[in-house]
Amino acid sequence: MAGVEAIDKLSLELSRLPGIGKKTAQRLAFHIVGMPEDKVRELAVAIYNGKKNVHFCPVCGNYTDSDVCSVCSDTSRRRDIVCVVRDARDVNALERIREYNGLYHVLGGVISPMDNVGPDDIRIRELLTRLAGGEIKEVVLATNPDVEGEATAAYLSRLIKPMGITVTRIAHGVPVGGELEYTDEITLMRAFKGRREL
Amino acid sequence: MAGVEAIDKLSLELSRLPGIGKKTAQRLAFHIVGMPEDKVRELAVAIYNGKKNVHFCPVCGNYTDSDVCSVCSDTSRRRDIVCVVRDARDVNALERIREYNGLYHVLGGVISPMDNVGPDDIRIRELLTRLAGGEIKEVVLATNPDVEGEATAAYLSRLIKPMGITVTRIAHGVPVGGELEYTDEITLMRAFKGRREL
Repeated sequence: MAGVEAIDKLSLELSRLPGIGKKTAQRLAFHIVGMPEDKVRELAVAIYNGKKNVHFCPVCGNYTDSDVCSVCSDTSRRRDIVCVVRDARDVNALERIREYNGLYHVLGGVISPMDNVGPDDIRIRELLTRLAGGEIKEVVLATNPDVEGEATAAYLSRLIKPMGITVTRIAHGVPVGGELEYTDEITLMRAFKGRREL
Repeated sequence: MAGVEAIDKLSLELSRLPGIGKKTAQRLAFHIVGMPEDKVRELAVAIYNGKKNVHFCPVCGNYTDSDVCSVCSDTSRRRDIVCVVRDARDVNALERIREYNGLYHVLGGVISPMDNVGPDDIRIRELLTRLAGGEIKEVVLATNPDVEGEATAAYLSRLIKPMGITVTRIAHGVPVGGELEYTDEITLMRAFKGRREL
């Protein structure tokens, strides 16, 4: 505690952010107090606007500050392939690789009985409605390779395949730069099973 | 880049904070966008108020959101000893140890010819004015143990000693929990020279 109420309050608010401990929060608070006033106003406004102006795209569930998100409204993108992800930050991660040129569908979560999240709690109905349109030929399931992500992918696969749509899953394997020696057995097994002819 | 202007702007502002890289900034930005609106408003307001309501104590230069800082206005503290530090966050560090019960004087910097900071650029004149009052019997020089901190301490010592005031310097030595083997030679030398009879 700095003994100054406004600094303590700021430290407290900052320490609530993920990955910001008490010490870092206090260091940041002191830094902010020492910043020029216009820069501090800019930061505060950016935070408030970040929340206020950003909402979910009504089509795919991605973050946007327009009516429809930048991916859905991009006419140069393929409309016959949809990549299904858990949340909007996964869209961001995939967009960064500049490899994929289709659409997205953000589930807003994954099926997780442990956390009381069932199929009706995430945007699966919206996905099926989109698929019913008939335009989409392939669904890439890009949920995380963890228990819930795999279960959600399996669930979606069973629902979508009967609609005559190709369902694919992102590849699992040894991460680039990783070492076989330090790779866990399940990943290694998948990397081996998923081997491709060169 | 998230492709959403408000999120990118927020990431950019966050990445300007010390110790916050591009990736952390983006992670925080996504977290903030996902927070409830009232919590985001609280954070933004805390940041803005932290700057707006906090100013320097006119007596000692410490941060405060009142007229005079909590240390200077605390009548239970000794008024015959002043601890001189570089900046307000040093006051905070020293207050945390709950060992010192006197007053402070924040220089707002240290003498550093390399950075074009001379004696007139920091609050030395204000310190001498306080000392001229005659109430203060000891000045503890607690600037950092680096080149500029030592030079500033030496400079102040030369000015203050002739006023008949006791001048002390915080002890240098091996940090608690540190190992002799990994302690640099100058610190080790000072620890040896500063040895005390037990």
